[in-house]
Amino acid sequence: VTVAARRALAQADVVVTDRLAPRELLDELAADVELVDVAKLPRGRAAAQEAINQLLVARARAGKRVVRLKGGDGFVFGRGYEEVMACADAGIPCTVVPGVTSALSVPALAGIPVTHRGVTHDFTVVSGHLPPGHPDSLVDWAGLGGSKGTLLLLMAVDNLPVIAEALQQHGRSPGTPVAIISDGSMPTERTVLTTLGESAATAADHDVRPPAVIVVGDVVSVANPTAYGQALV
Amino acid sequence: VTVAARRALAQADVVVTDRLAPRELLDELAADVELVDVAKLPRGRAAAQEAINQLLVARARAGKRVVRLKGGDGFVFGRGYEEVMACADAGIPCTVVPGVTSALSVPALAGIPVTHRGVTHDFTVVSGHLPPGHPDSLVDWAGLGGSKGTLLLLMAVDNLPVIAEALQQHGRSPGTPVAIISDGSMPTERTVLTTLGESAATAADHDVRPPAVIVVGDVVSVANPTAYGQALV
Repeated sequence: VTVAARRALAQADVVVTDRLAPRELLDELAADVELVDVAKLPRGRAAAQEAINQLLVARARAGKRVVRLKGGDGFVFGRGYEEVMACADAGIPCTVVPGVTSALSVPALAGIPVTHRGVTHDFTVVSGHLPPGHPDSLVDWAGLGGSKGTLLLLMAVDNLPVIAEALQQHGRSPGTPVAIISDGSMPTERTVLTTLGESAATAADHDVRPPAVIVVGDVVSVANPTAYGQALV
Repeated sequence: VTVAARRALAQADVVVTDRLAPRELLDELAADVELVDVAKLPRGRAAAQEAINQLLVARARAGKRVVRLKGGDGFVFGRGYEEVMACADAGIPCTVVPGVTSALSVPALAGIPVTHRGVTHDFTVVSGHLPPGHPDSLVDWAGLGGSKGTLLLLMAVDNLPVIAEALQQHGRSPGTPVAIISDGSMPTERTVLTTLGESAATAADHDVRPPAVIVVGDVVSVANPTAYGQALV
């Protein structure tokens, strides 16, 4: 967590949080701070987002200083901007405090750089929550298969078999090194090293479950995760 | 800066820094902490990197607790991993504290989300320090031209004319929205909105200088930077 985020929390009247926000931070809050856990909102996802927006606006209009606490980076697949726009539309001033995205911090903590001189000059962060070919998918899996940069797949454990297949079909070699880092930054963190061709089978063999960050690319082979004393499989 | 980074600094005997590290943090250090500014190393870049590696190892071997402070994310075009490997090779234990990368925090502070529901499910961070076609370039500009995800160009101000040309040549529409954010997070921060086809001319007209983050993609058109009260041109 950043110093700026902690400072904002210390000044909050209301904190609106969900299941990805770190509990330690919430334990630090003063007793008179109202804590709202939106993970407990009972309805579907779209309705829940609308309810969150309304809650933020209503509390701010009541003169409260509201902090919306999200795990990771709220602008990386986090719908953070939808909440910013709802506030802007309601005329409520707000400040964004950038977070540390798991897409980059989890590989870093596991000993894998997303870029490395002489290896890659670009990386792509992709949501894998929809499989390739899904009508709502906005991801160009063919293009990512043809590129050589590092890929960082989020929310991709369930769809890994079809994603790995699509990437190979469009040009990535089956031998491309892959690291699957589950429970990043938690005591249960585990890194499994494999290849693109074997990745789906390896994930199944090791019973990998979400949340995980999957790193695809040659940076995985320059990495030396044992330098950090991480648990490697 | 993160709470973890600040905590590490408070425990340091030696702090090795360079010109991108925030000065406020250095002003907080105790008087007996040795501060080494490697930006002042007189030699060429490769030699300077070797000298930094040797310095880190030498101080650690002398029993000092050494903090290497970098601006942004040291693993995003930051050569951070080269220093980690030098320490690992010397048998020196080290801990990586992930930072907030400017590639994501600068757009967020300027009111531009890198992903947005219904607009894009992926983004690519690219170094523009080498022009397309340069023999040492590892970037697949043709592939990036053909993709539809958000592009975040770092170190790309000088090469923007040739980069914009390459992206259009390989499929990105000249009308693709572009935001050029210079001096991100500083009092002199400025956001210039333009299109891919006009971006080079706009940057020249407004005398845009590094450092800048250049955002290419439809997320720029959903953004409403005035919601933040930013200075827009």
